[in-house]
Amino acid sequence: MRTEVAIIGAGPAGLLLSHLLAEQGVESVLIETRSQEYVLSRIRAGILEHSTVQLLDDIGLGTRLHAEGQQHRGIYLQWPEERHNIDFTDLVGRSVWVYGQTEVTKDLVAAREAAGQQIYYEVTDTALHDIESDSPFVTFTDSSGTQVRLDASVVAGCDGSFGPSRAAMPDSVRQVWERTYPYSWLGVLADVAPSTDELIYAWHPDGFAMHSMRSSTVSRLYLQVPNGTDVSTWSDDRIWDALSTRLGHGQDGWELTPGPITEKSVLPMRSYVQTPMRHGRLFLAGDAAHIVPPTGAKGLNLAVADVALLAPALAALLRKNDDTLANSYSDDALRRVWRCTHFSWWMTTMLHTAEDPFDAQLQLSQLRWVASSEAGATGLAENYAGLPIGF
Amino acid sequence: MRTEVAIIGAGPAGLLLSHLLAEQGVESVLIETRSQEYVLSRIRAGILEHSTVQLLDDIGLGTRLHAEGQQHRGIYLQWPEERHNIDFTDLVGRSVWVYGQTEVTKDLVAAREAAGQQIYYEVTDTALHDIESDSPFVTFTDSSGTQVRLDASVVAGCDGSFGPSRAAMPDSVRQVWERTYPYSWLGVLADVAPSTDELIYAWHPDGFAMHSMRSSTVSRLYLQVPNGTDVSTWSDDRIWDALSTRLGHGQDGWELTPGPITEKSVLPMRSYVQTPMRHGRLFLAGDAAHIVPPTGAKGLNLAVADVALLAPALAALLRKNDDTLANSYSDDALRRVWRCTHFSWWMTTMLHTAEDPFDAQLQLSQLRWVASSEAGATGLAENYAGLPIGF
Repeated sequence: MRTEVAIIGAGPAGLLLSHLLAEQGVESVLIETRSQEYVLSRIRAGILEHSTVQLLDDIGLGTRLHAEGQQHRGIYLQWPEERHNIDFTDLVGRSVWVYGQTEVTKDLVAAREAAGQQIYYEVTDTALHDIESDSPFVTFTDSSGTQVRLDASVVAGCDGSFGPSRAAMPDSVRQVWERTYPYSWLGVLADVAPSTDELIYAWHPDGFAMHSMRSSTVSRLYLQVPNGTDVSTWSDDRIWDALSTRLGHGQDGWELTPGPITEKSVLPMRSYVQTPMRHGRLFLAGDAAHIVPPTGAKGLNLAVADVALLAPALAALLRKNDDTLANSYSDDALRRVWRCTHFSWWMTTMLHTAEDPFDAQLQLSQLRWVASSEAGATGLAENYAGLPIGF
Repeated sequence: MRTEVAIIGAGPAGLLLSHLLAEQGVESVLIETRSQEYVLSRIRAGILEHSTVQLLDDIGLGTRLHAEGQQHRGIYLQWPEERHNIDFTDLVGRSVWVYGQTEVTKDLVAAREAAGQQIYYEVTDTALHDIESDSPFVTFTDSSGTQVRLDASVVAGCDGSFGPSRAAMPDSVRQVWERTYPYSWLGVLADVAPSTDELIYAWHPDGFAMHSMRSSTVSRLYLQVPNGTDVSTWSDDRIWDALSTRLGHGQDGWELTPGPITEKSVLPMRSYVQTPMRHGRLFLAGDAAHIVPPTGAKGLNLAVADVALLAPALAALLRKNDDTLANSYSDDALRRVWRCTHFSWWMTTMLHTAEDPFDAQLQLSQLRWVASSEAGATGLAENYAGLPIGF
């Protein structure tokens, strides 16, 4: 079988790439190790930054987002006794949208299916070959057990941090930077209306807590917990008690309304960057090249920004034989990757309590400055609401 | 002997306090373990922030500063291949002045001597007594060997981090936060005109370097070195070679002009805060309560800001029996202390190379952001040029 772009991974990065390529008349085939059901139900990020929303609007995929998503002007930043609104719209003229990654994936799958996009789900034994030549190919076993060889002009690795694409970069070429954090998030979904209009990011001596939401009836909440925490040691009551304490239930009359918890899991926190993002005819996008801790809500947005650069680069390469954008793709994408890697690290280390009491004072001093200085608040806002694509 | 305020330490904090108190008609006696000669020649900070200059102007001590000091609009922030000017004056409407701490001390000593201020130099065995009562006293042996008892209404501890004032706070009351850094500065004074119009803060893979100055004919330069570095292992040639490399000699035609090195020393880097800054009738100011690493040029300025709060607080307490400002002194001063402690830590950790290569990428990403984002540059500028007294 032959296509122009073999896309490994049918998560949001791969799906969006196939969509953007199709708009430019470039053909692709998607292969994915998981089932479609799994991909569609995987709970991930829920905040779309300004440029992500703009891109989805531009390609006609913003209808449900605007109907069902929630536009947020900013966030609350808080610590014991104080809650401050950081209004991105006032500060930098950009807002963010609350719209789950699952919903973005659904919209993309629907659009790709309507366009007749070829997607292989539940493939196994995926392997990349001859990526340094102009005729690379991918081999895999499809869901019926048939061995498939997929020839292509380009391979796009959108298969996350555990997929084969990242590892297909030769060791002599790739460099890796990594940081693991000494804490995790206990995340819960609850069938209860959010107790807040905007997300709350709370520093507390007991640990970070966050009040997010998926919709007007579903709340998403997080608690900082030690690495290796067994989720079964956190009963629903214990979770709501900790959330109430850390989010400041009762402070200035604010109340946290508990409700039935429908999902509970522990998420590790990690920063990871692999460079370059292109080698020969293999191009990496999204989690295959970089992982950020979730505190800055950057993971999905960074994947979208990668793909927004990659699609025109591949179209120019394959349609016009112009390799200018393809050659600069890695450097162009990495500027944003490192900006967001730094921002995610900054938000994470500012808000999560650490062992050294000196850190707590640095954090509180920084939080007070961010909340009281226009420059401080603007710095957070411009990074959170997101820089323009290709900034 | 009896006075109103017994001031321990005749460095800039103690001298300025005695001056400000005298302006309000409050009498003080200064005692100092070092000789006057030593105090006057001690090389320390050289950057005065906006509010420090304003204060010295207000009390008539700005004449020589304006004649001999140099007003600087900002700094250069650089890393290999890039040098960026951060113009504080454009960004926040405030500038800084290059005028050595030795010069400030000279001006203060001259003013206090002209006013007949009593200063005991080279005292030994200084001890604080009854600080929890309204009649504290200080005992010491003066330079002639005579035992002296100095009764006072208030004791001001301006005696730095190794003086007896800090330690006189009961353990049950005081809290300490501390951070040591895994690097030191090798600082040199050189008899050569500065090769730059503004200070250069340079990130480099070999380590941080800084080009500062004392005057139009004297340069002050620093190199990041490992803790425990023996100054004798750094020949003048080695120092100039390292400075040339790290400061980017030859980059865009810029040249570093070497010259005779007249002073060479290794300075450790430390953050330290002790709270509260007031207990009973003992008030701490300057290094006695807090130490910052020198990267943010905050040490002297923070001491001046403490004293600017302390003088009116003591005048109100002693002249009007109004303890409002005295009671809030510790909290008021600590707001700025923690802001500057955070800023100094931020500048230090952004610019000094660390062992983990992930840190280098975070630093470069942050430097690029500070240099390219107006919010980022303004954040640096407003902290470096300094917040208003009592912000």
